[in-house]
Amino acid sequence: MRTIRLTDTDNIVLAVDSLRPDDVAEGVTITERIARGHKAAVKPIAKGAPVLKYGQVIGFARQDIAPGQWVHEHNVHVQEFDRAYVFGIDATETRYTDAADRRTFQGFRRASGRFGTRNYIAVLTSVNCSATASRFIADEVNRSGVLDAYPNIDGVISLVHGTGCGLDTKGEAYETLRRTQWGFATNPNVGGVLMVGLGCEVFQIPGWMKSYGVQEDETFRTLTIQEVGGTRKTVEAGVKAIHEMLDAVNAASRTTAPASELMLALQCGGSDGYSGITSNPALGVAVDMLVAEGGTAILSETPEIYGAEHLLMRRAVSTEVGEKLAERIRWWEAYTARHDMEMNNNPSPGNKAGGLTTILEKSLGAAAKGGSTNLAGVFNYADPVTARGLVFMDTPGYDPVSATGQVAGGANVLCFTTGRGSAFGCKPTPSIKLASNSYIFEKMNEDMDLNCGDILDGVSLRDKGAEIFEAILRVASGERTKSEVLGYGDSEFVPWSIGATM
Amino acid sequence: MRTIRLTDTDNIVLAVDSLRPDDVAEGVTITERIARGHKAAVKPIAKGAPVLKYGQVIGFARQDIAPGQWVHEHNVHVQEFDRAYVFGIDATETRYTDAADRRTFQGFRRASGRFGTRNYIAVLTSVNCSATASRFIADEVNRSGVLDAYPNIDGVISLVHGTGCGLDTKGEAYETLRRTQWGFATNPNVGGVLMVGLGCEVFQIPGWMKSYGVQEDETFRTLTIQEVGGTRKTVEAGVKAIHEMLDAVNAASRTTAPASELMLALQCGGSDGYSGITSNPALGVAVDMLVAEGGTAILSETPEIYGAEHLLMRRAVSTEVGEKLAERIRWWEAYTARHDMEMNNNPSPGNKAGGLTTILEKSLGAAAKGGSTNLAGVFNYADPVTARGLVFMDTPGYDPVSATGQVAGGANVLCFTTGRGSAFGCKPTPSIKLASNSYIFEKMNEDMDLNCGDILDGVSLRDKGAEIFEAILRVASGERTKSEVLGYGDSEFVPWSIGATM
Ligand SMILES: [Ca+2]
Ligand SMILES: [Ca+2]
Ligand SMILES: [Ca+2]
Ligand SMILES: [Ca+2]
Ligand SMILES: [Ca+2]
Repeated sequence: MRTIRLTDTDNIVLAVDSLRPDDVAEGVTITERIARGHKAAVKPIAKGAPVLKYGQVIGFARQDIAPGQWVHEHNVHVQEFDRAYVFGIDATETRYTDAADRRTFQGFRRASGRFGTRNYIAVLTSVNCSATASRFIADEVNRSGVLDAYPNIDGVISLVHGTGCGLDTKGEAYETLRRTQWGFATNPNVGGVLMVGLGCEVFQIPGWMKSYGVQEDETFRTLTIQEVGGTRKTVEAGVKAIHEMLDAVNAASRTTAPASELMLALQCGGSDGYSGITSNPALGVAVDMLVAEGGTAILSETPEIYGAEHLLMRRAVSTEVGEKLAERIRWWEAYTARHDMEMNNNPSPGNKAGGLTTILEKSLGAAAKGGSTNLAGVFNYADPVTARGLVFMDTPGYDPVSATGQVAGGANVLCFTTGRGSAFGCKPTPSIKLASNSYIFEKMNEDMDLNCGDILDGVSLRDKGAEIFEAILRVASGERTKSEVLGYGDSEFVPWSIGATM
Repeated sequence: MRTIRLTDTDNIVLAVDSLRPDDVAEGVTITERIARGHKAAVKPIAKGAPVLKYGQVIGFARQDIAPGQWVHEHNVHVQEFDRAYVFGIDATETRYTDAADRRTFQGFRRASGRFGTRNYIAVLTSVNCSATASRFIADEVNRSGVLDAYPNIDGVISLVHGTGCGLDTKGEAYETLRRTQWGFATNPNVGGVLMVGLGCEVFQIPGWMKSYGVQEDETFRTLTIQEVGGTRKTVEAGVKAIHEMLDAVNAASRTTAPASELMLALQCGGSDGYSGITSNPALGVAVDMLVAEGGTAILSETPEIYGAEHLLMRRAVSTEVGEKLAERIRWWEAYTARHDMEMNNNPSPGNKAGGLTTILEKSLGAAAKGGSTNLAGVFNYADPVTARGLVFMDTPGYDPVSATGQVAGGANVLCFTTGRGSAFGCKPTPSIKLASNSYIFEKMNEDMDLNCGDILDGVSLRDKGAEIFEAILRVASGERTKSEVLGYGDSEFVPWSIGATM
């Protein structure tokens, strides 16, 4: 009869196995049958008092609840005013690790001052029309063997997509694509860029470069198929342009970098009933450790944290940061309404049967990846992340689209929790996959990097968080993740397509 | 001083080179300077009388216009009521080629009774999460050499995309994706299908198959990564599934098929000032020839024919067909309004300077690809095309998205006109690229299949249309297009993404 208490302040425990009367959990005698995945009170909860999970309010007692009783919708409720937006009142002073105890990794120092964990050459595409040429360029360089002489280069990647034309240049879709491309071009895991276009597309390379104040140089080259005169010549010219940048890109080498230079993207996909109690809170512990080092972690997937956004706002470092999140939530409410969709995805009957009592509890399970520190910033999709600490980037919940925004924001490492078993991998940013349960860790062992399922067997969140943090440092220093070994990352660049396609 | 008169009934000619007073065009003495790309009257046009180009009304004379005079916005106007929707009043009886003179091609007969022009095995993906595994499966089979023993198989293609999850199952985006996948699975150019999924995605393979009433069989197989247990095992199982269908897929062989079994997709992209007077009307002649054979051609790109839709409605074979087009136009007006975009893209100052007088003239230039026969049907994006003759499929103008819908509709051959130089190619449907001008034909000669630029030097539309029709028959019979030789088609599958991504 295993149980989990997620934080010391919680007044409930989770039943990992089903509980019967007279079972003892956390020193408390259980007084009724409690199904697995459901909650038992471990402290008296007076009528009107908060029910605490993740150290957070997930609802209020409808009546007095005694230790050992089942805690679910029959005796817990949420009122709408509980979600009122209040900014910053739960923000605390960040406790940083002592300077002498700070951790490091081996990274590639960039001219920007940032550090990469990988050193790729990226072939970007302005439009789908140049996708095939770009793939041919990357494939030819990778297969030719020429990179064998350049050990500091991780490879050439082609980042192709389905858009770039049929767009309104004054619209959100166009701006999102521009930011995404710029973010990949400047991600610290990218040492060289070749941007390939068709020529007549809406996404014009010269205008894009001008708006960011850049010009072609040794490690930033551009080509268009129409100017060069066709596909074959473009492939030839693109391969030549990459050959010409190999010396410069290979000149980067790994050097000791403070862990504060890590920017960690947080993802979950294919979640199950365990994600919110094993892999997500364990990742949250690792995030707290990274923040203590002065590093950055990016929580995202707005539709999946909807319902718990007010709790993030309470941790905001400023009214401005809190307001920015409120504005993004309002944007989503309008966006989904415009498409006849719903944000307010209350726990479904299936969720409730599985033990989730309120939408707060559900969304907190996803938000648990972000740990417990202050909310230091809120960013639009694919915008450069300029704050340190835990930040939020507004993205869809759909994994490849969300991760694409985070990597554009500057993420140089990524942790992805999954219960059903995701096969995600990204380039240029290595992705560590965390299984929420031991079954999927075994079943998909060639895809999963780390098992969080043993939390159900008694491994503490603190120990698991520390294990994840060590894995992050090793991967940042060059250890290859499972998805890198498998070769993922060439089809997972999916910029958010917001507007109408004309 | 070259000029072009597009049809005998036109009362204007186009100046290919600029004209001066006393130049003679079509036996008419020019009376003022007329810039290249602009129009000269070759018959008297009384005040209020229609100006005819492509045999169609492009506007009305504001004043009496004498032969030899410049015809442009100073003496031509359009009134809103001219666009009133009237259904079928210009429909005529189709003149079919005599049975004895009918043409044939060598195609693959399918169990459905349709004929393929290629014989591919398609690896479809329910979601982006299975994209990498699907690419690995296709690559492994293609590179292994195993296909050398199966000469009737054109290869294995992986059709990956960026969606399949984060979707509302009750929404337009989901329905569009389901139709598109089904259309590719059943396109007559596909001899075998392997559908690969992750497992937990919104797009569920079993439900999709059930809704179309199909089950797995010798040439239709499915797999999910979660069920098989990871990426490597999925690639292994996918390769095995394809090996198991090779004998059955290779059993198809080319046999004589009537030209009426061709379903031709019509595309233009990277258009220039010549597209509307060379490649597009020449392709229209070829379409008329195909329709006379009993075949089918699909005109699309709704935003690009907007402004001339009422003329297509006048050619509708029934009120129902005309109404369906009107309904699609209203849908686009609402769709673009919802995204703060405009359909009513009147000739821009640049268009006007180039000689385009009205939005009708501009849109007729795109619609000219469809030729002059009746409008036999109107179809939603990616819906199976079930009519014969000239039909319309509602798609965006953006080439890969539009072509994806047409191929899903059943197109087994495609003609693509371009002025600026498109590099498009498609699998499983071969794409013949038609240059609108000789400059781009030469400049991108490794990408262009056929030059329509010599129409400016006097080659007749009739002769050029016949040349295109012959090329269609040859390509349908197996002759490889330039984009097939180059290897296009693995990145150009782009299902229309309509709704919100969650
Ligand atoms: Ca350049
Ligand atoms: Ca997700
Ligand atoms: Ca073969
Ligand atoms: Ca199966
Ligand atoms: Ca187009």
